[in-house]
Amino acid sequence: NQLRQAAAAAREGSWALPTIDTKTNIRSIYAPVGPVVVFGPNNFPFAFNGMAGGDFAAAVAAGNPVIAKGHSSHPGTTRLFAEEALLAAQDTDMPPGFVQMIYRTTHQDGCRLVSHPKIGATGYTGSRTAGLVLKEAADRAGKPIYLELSSINPVFVLPGALEERMEEVANQFTASCLLGAGQFCTNPGLVIVPKGDAGHRFVQAVKRRFEQTGPGVLLSESVERSFSKSLNTLLRAGAYVVTGGKPAADRGYGYQNTLLEVDGDTFVSNAVALETEVFGNCSLFVIADDGDQMVRIAERLEGNLTGCIYSHTDGRDDALYDRIAPVLRQRVGRLLNDKMPTGVAVTPAMNHGGPYPATGHPGFTSVGIPASLRRFAMLQCYDNVRPHRLPPLLRDKNPGGRAWRLIDRQWTRADVTA
Amino acid sequence: NQLRQAAAAAREGSWALPTIDTKTNIRSIYAPVGPVVVFGPNNFPFAFNGMAGGDFAAAVAAGNPVIAKGHSSHPGTTRLFAEEALLAAQDTDMPPGFVQMIYRTTHQDGCRLVSHPKIGATGYTGSRTAGLVLKEAADRAGKPIYLELSSINPVFVLPGALEERMEEVANQFTASCLLGAGQFCTNPGLVIVPKGDAGHRFVQAVKRRFEQTGPGVLLSESVERSFSKSLNTLLRAGAYVVTGGKPAADRGYGYQNTLLEVDGDTFVSNAVALETEVFGNCSLFVIADDGDQMVRIAERLEGNLTGCIYSHTDGRDDALYDRIAPVLRQRVGRLLNDKMPTGVAVTPAMNHGGPYPATGHPGFTSVGIPASLRRFAMLQCYDNVRPHRLPPLLRDKNPGGRAWRLIDRQWTRADVTA
Repeated sequence: NQLRQAAAAAREGSWALPTIDTKTNIRSIYAPVGPVVVFGPNNFPFAFNGMAGGDFAAAVAAGNPVIAKGHSSHPGTTRLFAEEALLAAQDTDMPPGFVQMIYRTTHQDGCRLVSHPKIGATGYTGSRTAGLVLKEAADRAGKPIYLELSSINPVFVLPGALEERMEEVANQFTASCLLGAGQFCTNPGLVIVPKGDAGHRFVQAVKRRFEQTGPGVLLSESVERSFSKSLNTLLRAGAYVVTGGKPAADRGYGYQNTLLEVDGDTFVSNAVALETEVFGNCSLFVIADDGDQMVRIAERLEGNLTGCIYSHTDGRDDALYDRIAPVLRQRVGRLLNDKMPTGVAVTPAMNHGGPYPATGHPGFTSVGIPASLRRFAMLQCYDNVRPHRLPPLLRDKNPGGRAWRLIDRQWTRADVTA
Repeated sequence: NQLRQAAAAAREGSWALPTIDTKTNIRSIYAPVGPVVVFGPNNFPFAFNGMAGGDFAAAVAAGNPVIAKGHSSHPGTTRLFAEEALLAAQDTDMPPGFVQMIYRTTHQDGCRLVSHPKIGATGYTGSRTAGLVLKEAADRAGKPIYLELSSINPVFVLPGALEERMEEVANQFTASCLLGAGQFCTNPGLVIVPKGDAGHRFVQAVKRRFEQTGPGVLLSESVERSFSKSLNTLLRAGAYVVTGGKPAADRGYGYQNTLLEVDGDTFVSNAVALETEVFGNCSLFVIADDGDQMVRIAERLEGNLTGCIYSHTDGRDDALYDRIAPVLRQRVGRLLNDKMPTGVAVTPAMNHGGPYPATGHPGFTSVGIPASLRRFAMLQCYDNVRPHRLPPLLRDKNPGGRAWRLIDRQWTRADVTA
């Protein structure tokens, strides 16, 4: 689906925002930036594979050759994709080397690659540590790099939502948090709940569900190791275990479904440590004294991919919503109402991005066509260039007549008329 | 004009690319990124002043408060703008502190400013050295920074253009190169000319014009010092003086109009040093053996704001054009035909940007509305957010009916209809 949408966007051409000013005869368009390096993550061997995933599709659709770095935890799948991609490139008469793939690289080789003069840009999805090493190298060389690092995807549950539909919210949260053993970039890892009876019952309701659901399997030994390390960071920072917290017996790599709790004061005073991501089936509940403290908690949040607010449908939470939402809005790429963040629709308005440290730049998205293609493009302007030398999409006649173009400040599919 | 266009764009709203997917009820828009720091340059006290120039206008039009750093060479002008801006902000009920200005800062204070957690982004126009110091600090903090550094704006003059209209090209070049004593970011500082009789006569024609034109005044002692230093770098790297090369007598800060020459082999083998920008009324002519060498010269070029190719109007240069243009295209933000680069129209299709080291990112432009506004914006997505909580431009009804919105992949000014 993702590959098909990207291919359709590439053929149609609107993604490149062709812009024509007839009076000055200045024309511009987004065009391929040059060979793109794609570092794929461990968690999505299909949708985000270095060789056939979102970054790969966007980079190729924008017209760039791709060098994909396969994640070492699924070399076989990646190799199959690579072979298919190679055949496809040959079938469609792409230049030799249009798609290439490499396996395990050292940090040093990765840095040389992303900063190489012939490389146009890099897409990276993975751990924060490795990502920041690559970012520093690319930044120093002036090469664009798009990172998707970590995100705890805060969920604010306002008092009215618990009054109205506590069981339903507990169901939605549990399903979202334990989906794929929690190994989604948009996994809800931080939930802010009001103190008091309703909040307490909500925590207990989630606890029951966590205990009734079998723990999923973590992807590798290294994911389990990192789960354990991050969990300890949270515990040392003042969180305590409501349920779980131990390796799952007899299930390969894995941990019990783990629910942690911390009070609002502790979170506010120790937010950096308590925002550590535990990648997997774990979530931290923050019990906020009141609405004021919920706002202060929002103010302490780092950049995230998503942020959710659950509120009563009759509007009784709206005053509090209006205080939390503007604070949360500037800290997340996608703001949700009454919905968990794990579903990421591949649709033009999707933003799978957000402020640092969720990604490296708050203006770009790695999912959602056309916008994700523009990451791997440079803006190319033509000033007084003779008509036959222009790229087809910038000539007076709209080739195919399907691409939207901004002509003299109006979007149109028509030709330029004298 | 720039401020008016920016204000009109802000009121109209199309710059923010409002995008609505009705089936999934996902909506997104570019929104203010947060307080923007603007470092203004020395050369445009009006159009690019930190307090009222292009970056300032774009940042404010995108909805951000601005902290402007005035360049120390025109504190008075900048102060007048600041006072006007403050009055305007008060008249329009902007929050206190919406515009602020500061003067001279140390590198250290500059770095603290651009990497401060409350800062959204930075716009910088100025020297490469200071710019890269700020870039490193901003990059490390994950804060977007848009730089306009240096550019030598190569001009390729193909053999046919000299046969056809040598005097005209010499006139255009001289006017462009000496405009404002050459202190434009798009000043043509590198000209590639074919070897032989026509090329020789072209150099002589430019030499005469340089000698007949009085030298302009450089902006400050520090510009003169930097002129002298860069000139020496070029001379040490193998260039020699055709005319000029000495400080101008009795004219305040200034240098004689200076024309340098170097052969193609020397340029190709020592391109890094020979691409040093001499900011001012100076240009380096490279005498290329033949078309092949012109292509090799293009391949050695760093990122630039602009690149020009002059060719015969009857098409006899087209084979060579077709070899040089693709190489040059990937290295410049704006490609021109038969036209010098100094004019920068403020128009939607303009790209005043280009690959590093001309700027910090090849996908952005600092001139041209709407695109320049999107530098100072973050992508904000709304997923299932209740209608009354959406920003007006993302509601079903198009407020005002003037903004273009991408609804279900079609650009339209209409409302969303059920």
